[in-house]
Amino acid sequence: MALFLQIKRHVERLIADGILGPGTKLPATRDLARTLGVNRTTIATAYDALVADGWARAHVGQGTFVADRPASRPAERPAAGPLAWEGSFSRGVRRLIEDVRRRTGPDVSVGPGLVSFLGASPDPTLFPTEEFRRALNHVIKREGAALLEYHPVAGYAPLRRYLAAWLVRHGIEVREDEVLVVNGSQQGLDLIARALIDPGDVVLIEEPTYPGAIQVFAAAQAELVPVPVGPGGLRVDVAATLIEKHRPKLLYCQPSGQNPTGVSLDPAARLALLDVAVRHRLPIVEDGFGAPGEAEGARAPLRALDRHGLVIHLGTLSKVLFPGLRVGWMVVPGPLAAPLLRIKQLADLNTGALLQAAVFRFCQGRRLERHARLIRAEYRSRRAALLGALERGLVPESAWSVPDESAFSLLLTLPEGVDAAALLPRAIDRGIAYAPGSFFFLGERGARALRLAYAALPGPRIDEGVRRLGDVVRDALKHRRRPSATATAGALPVV
Amino acid sequence: MALFLQIKRHVERLIADGILGPGTKLPATRDLARTLGVNRTTIATAYDALVADGWARAHVGQGTFVADRPASRPAERPAAGPLAWEGSFSRGVRRLIEDVRRRTGPDVSVGPGLVSFLGASPDPTLFPTEEFRRALNHVIKREGAALLEYHPVAGYAPLRRYLAAWLVRHGIEVREDEVLVVNGSQQGLDLIARALIDPGDVVLIEEPTYPGAIQVFAAAQAELVPVPVGPGGLRVDVAATLIEKHRPKLLYCQPSGQNPTGVSLDPAARLALLDVAVRHRLPIVEDGFGAPGEAEGARAPLRALDRHGLVIHLGTLSKVLFPGLRVGWMVVPGPLAAPLLRIKQLADLNTGALLQAAVFRFCQGRRLERHARLIRAEYRSRRAALLGALERGLVPESAWSVPDESAFSLLLTLPEGVDAAALLPRAIDRGIAYAPGSFFFLGERGARALRLAYAALPGPRIDEGVRRLGDVVRDALKHRRRPSATATAGALPVV
Repeated sequence: MALFLQIKRHVERLIADGILGPGTKLPATRDLARTLGVNRTTIATAYDALVADGWARAHVGQGTFVADRPASRPAERPAAGPLAWEGSFSRGVRRLIEDVRRRTGPDVSVGPGLVSFLGASPDPTLFPTEEFRRALNHVIKREGAALLEYHPVAGYAPLRRYLAAWLVRHGIEVREDEVLVVNGSQQGLDLIARALIDPGDVVLIEEPTYPGAIQVFAAAQAELVPVPVGPGGLRVDVAATLIEKHRPKLLYCQPSGQNPTGVSLDPAARLALLDVAVRHRLPIVEDGFGAPGEAEGARAPLRALDRHGLVIHLGTLSKVLFPGLRVGWMVVPGPLAAPLLRIKQLADLNTGALLQAAVFRFCQGRRLERHARLIRAEYRSRRAALLGALERGLVPESAWSVPDESAFSLLLTLPEGVDAAALLPRAIDRGIAYAPGSFFFLGERGARALRLAYAALPGPRIDEGVRRLGDVVRDALKHRRRPSATATAGALPVV
Repeated sequence: MALFLQIKRHVERLIADGILGPGTKLPATRDLARTLGVNRTTIATAYDALVADGWARAHVGQGTFVADRPASRPAERPAAGPLAWEGSFSRGVRRLIEDVRRRTGPDVSVGPGLVSFLGASPDPTLFPTEEFRRALNHVIKREGAALLEYHPVAGYAPLRRYLAAWLVRHGIEVREDEVLVVNGSQQGLDLIARALIDPGDVVLIEEPTYPGAIQVFAAAQAELVPVPVGPGGLRVDVAATLIEKHRPKLLYCQPSGQNPTGVSLDPAARLALLDVAVRHRLPIVEDGFGAPGEAEGARAPLRALDRHGLVIHLGTLSKVLFPGLRVGWMVVPGPLAAPLLRIKQLADLNTGALLQAAVFRFCQGRRLERHARLIRAEYRSRRAALLGALERGLVPESAWSVPDESAFSLLLTLPEGVDAAALLPRAIDRGIAYAPGSFFFLGERGARALRLAYAALPGPRIDEGVRRLGDVVRDALKHRRRPSATATAGALPVV
C-alpha cells in the first residue's frame, strides 16, 4: 500500500474511533511530516484523499479539519480489539500474582493521628540527610562525570574495599572481589534465586518470614517448605528433618533480628545449622539485614562461621541509613561471583555509582558507625517501650515474640478467635495500624498474628498505640464467637 | 555438643588450616564473647580446653596464643571441601554463561592514546554535571528525608507526570499510570522477559542487535529467531514470514537509530509491522532508546501508531543525559502494568526516588530539551566526520550501514577473509579499538563486522581512528588467505 494511503487509513481510524472528534483541526502537514519523518507532500496527498472521501474538510489558509459528520464509519473495522495480555503471562508471574493476592491487605492511608506500626523501616526524623547531601556534593564536584558514566557491574571499587575491610573487622573474612554491590538486599535475593532455582526446586524458608523473600521464590516457581521459628530463632532440629526429607536447593533465613518476629538465632544453633548444611551440601542465604555498625552483642553472622563456602550473606543500608538509597551488598562464595554478575548485568547493567560514592564518602571517619550507635540507642528504648506496654497487659490474652535489640519489629498473637486481618479496619478507625500476620506466613497460617514495627515511632506514641490496640481487642473479645477447632488448627504462630 | 566444645573445634580448624598462625594472639575472651553473643565463661572454657590439648598456650596477664607447633592436625577433618556451586546453577544462568562466553572479547584497557570506538555512550565531556548537582541539592534540601524513604514502586509521581506529558507532546497518547520508572531501559527489558517468557517460547529479534537484549532472552530460556536488518531497518517482509512459521511470543526491535547499525525503520515499514502484529496478536517491544528531546525529524515511535495496545515502549536517559543515572521508563499497555510492578517490586523494591526527583527538577524549564539539542548537534557532526572518513576510502574494500542522525554507532563490514575479532588485538596495538560484530549476532555470524560507536569522540579523533583502522586492514589484506566457501557462508552481515 502506498505510504499516503496508509497514513490516510490511520487518520480514518482515529476519526471513526472518536479519538479525533468532529471539527478537530488536523496537525499542520509540516508538523505531521516531521513527526512521522516523511515527505510533506505525502501528508498533503493523504489529507486531500481524506477530504475527497468526506472524512475531512479543508479551509484554505486555515488547515484541514475533521468533518462535522464523517460520511460513514470505515468499511473495514480494525482487525481486532486490544490485545488480551493476560493470556501471555509467564508461569512465574502467574504464580507471583496468585501469591500477592493472598498477601494484600487494606490500603491504609496514614493520617496524622494514626499510630502506624506498619513499616519496618528506620525513623526518617533521625536521617542524617544534611551530612549525606554534603557527601554527595563532595563526590560530584570531585569525580561527577566519571560517576555518571556506565560503571563496572560489581560496584564502586572504593565502596567494595571499604565493605570488605569492615566485614573483616566483624569476623567475616572476605576478599574485595567477593563483595558485590546491588540495589538493596532485595535485588541480591532475587539474583540468587535466578542463579540457583529452577521451577520445582525446593527452598526451605523460615516461617514467619519477610514477604519479599516468599515472593522472590514464588516467582522463581520454587516449592517452598516452611521451617518454624521459635523463641531462639529458626528451629534447626526441624530444619534437619526437612532437609533429609526434601533435599532442598537452598535455605533462606534471617539469623539476626528476624523479620517479623525480631528474634535471633542462638549461637549454638548457628553452629549446628552450619553442621547440617555442610553434611547435606546445602547453600544458605543469610539475609543479615544488619549493617556496618551493627549493635555490639550481636551474634556472629553465619558467614563468619562458614568454612565451606556455602553461605551467601546479604547486607543493606536500608535499616541503618536510608531505605531509599537502594544500595546493598552480597558477600558471595568465589564461584558464585561470575554468574551473579552476569545476571546483575542483564537485570540493570549496574547500580548507580553516584550514590555508592556518596555512601563511601559518608562512611569515612567512622561516621556510619556513629550514626548507627545513635539510632540503635533510640531503637533500643522504643523496643523497651513496646515490651513494657505489652507486659503491663494492655492487650488482653495476647502473646508476643521478644525481639533482639537489633530488631525493628515483633510478632503479636491475638486471643483465640480474633482474626488480625479482619480486625484491621476497626483498628484503623481507632487510630492504630499494623501488618496482619498472614503476610508473613505461607498458606493460610498466621490469622491471629500481627506485626508491630516500632523503630519509626517515638516511645509515647508506642504506648498510646498499644493502648488503642488493647481497646480494639477488648471490643472484639466481647463479640467473639468461640471458633471451631478446625478454624484455629493452623492459626497459631510458632513464636 | 556443648557450646564451648563447638567453639573450641572451630578455633582448632582455623589453626589447622593455617588461618591462625603459630604465635597469633587469640581474641580477648571478653571481645570474642561479645562477637559471638555468648557468655564470657564459655569462651574461657573453650580456651582452657585448647590449651589442655596443646593447640594454644596461656600467658597470665597477656592472653592466649596459638601454640608454636600445634601438636597435630585435628583428628577429624572437615566433612568435605568447599561447596561445588557449579552443580547448583539454574538452567537460565547456564544458558546465559554459554551465551556470554561466545560474546566476550579481549579486555581493552583504554590508554590515553587509544581512539576507542567501543562504547555506544554519550560523551562525558558534554555532561551537564554542575546543573545536575544543583538540581540534586535543591531536591534534597526541599524533600530529602521523604526521598530517602521507601518509595512507591512505579516511580516518583512528578517525574511520571512529566514523562507522560512529554510523551503526549510527541504523539504517544499515554496516561501517567502507564508510565513506569525503572533502572534504565535494561531493567525494563528484563522485567518484560520475566513477565511474558516461559522456557522454549519463541522471541523474534532484530539481527544484528543489542547484546543486552540477546542475554535477557537467553536467561529467560527463549528460543531466539533472528530477523535481518536492512538499510531501511528491520525487514518486515521477512518478519511476517517468520511470524507465520514460528508463532513467536513477542518481537524485539529498536526502530530508531538501531544498535549497532544506527539505521531506522522506514515510516511505511512501521505501519506494515504494526499491521502484521495486529493480525497475529503479537506483542512488540520497542526499545526506543531516544529520549525527551529526541531529534526533530525522528520517526514516530511504534507506540504512537499502535491502536491495539500491543507495543511496549522503553525509554532511557542514558543516551541523552547520563548513562550512570540508571533512570529509564516503560510505557506499558494497561493490563501489563500490575504484573510488571509486581516483578519490579521483588527485583529491587523501587528505583531510588532521590535521583528521579533530581531528574525531574533538572527537566524543568525545558532544560533537558536544550541539552538534548546541544548534544544532538554535536553528534550529528561526529556522524558526518565518520561517514566522511569512510567515504574517502580510508578503510579499503569495506561497506557500512548509514546511521540515522539520532544514532550513536554504525556497523562496518571488513573485506572478505578478514575477521574483526581476530584483528582487534593488532588494532589496539595501533591505537584504535572497536566492538567485534560477533557481539551483535546470534550464533556464529558477524565475523567480518565491527561496530564503530562515534558519539563520544570529537571529529579529529574520529578521522585519526579511521585512518589507523585502514592501516590495520591494509596490513591484514597483505597476509590474508583466501577463505574457503564454508568459512564465509554465514559471515556476511545483512546491513
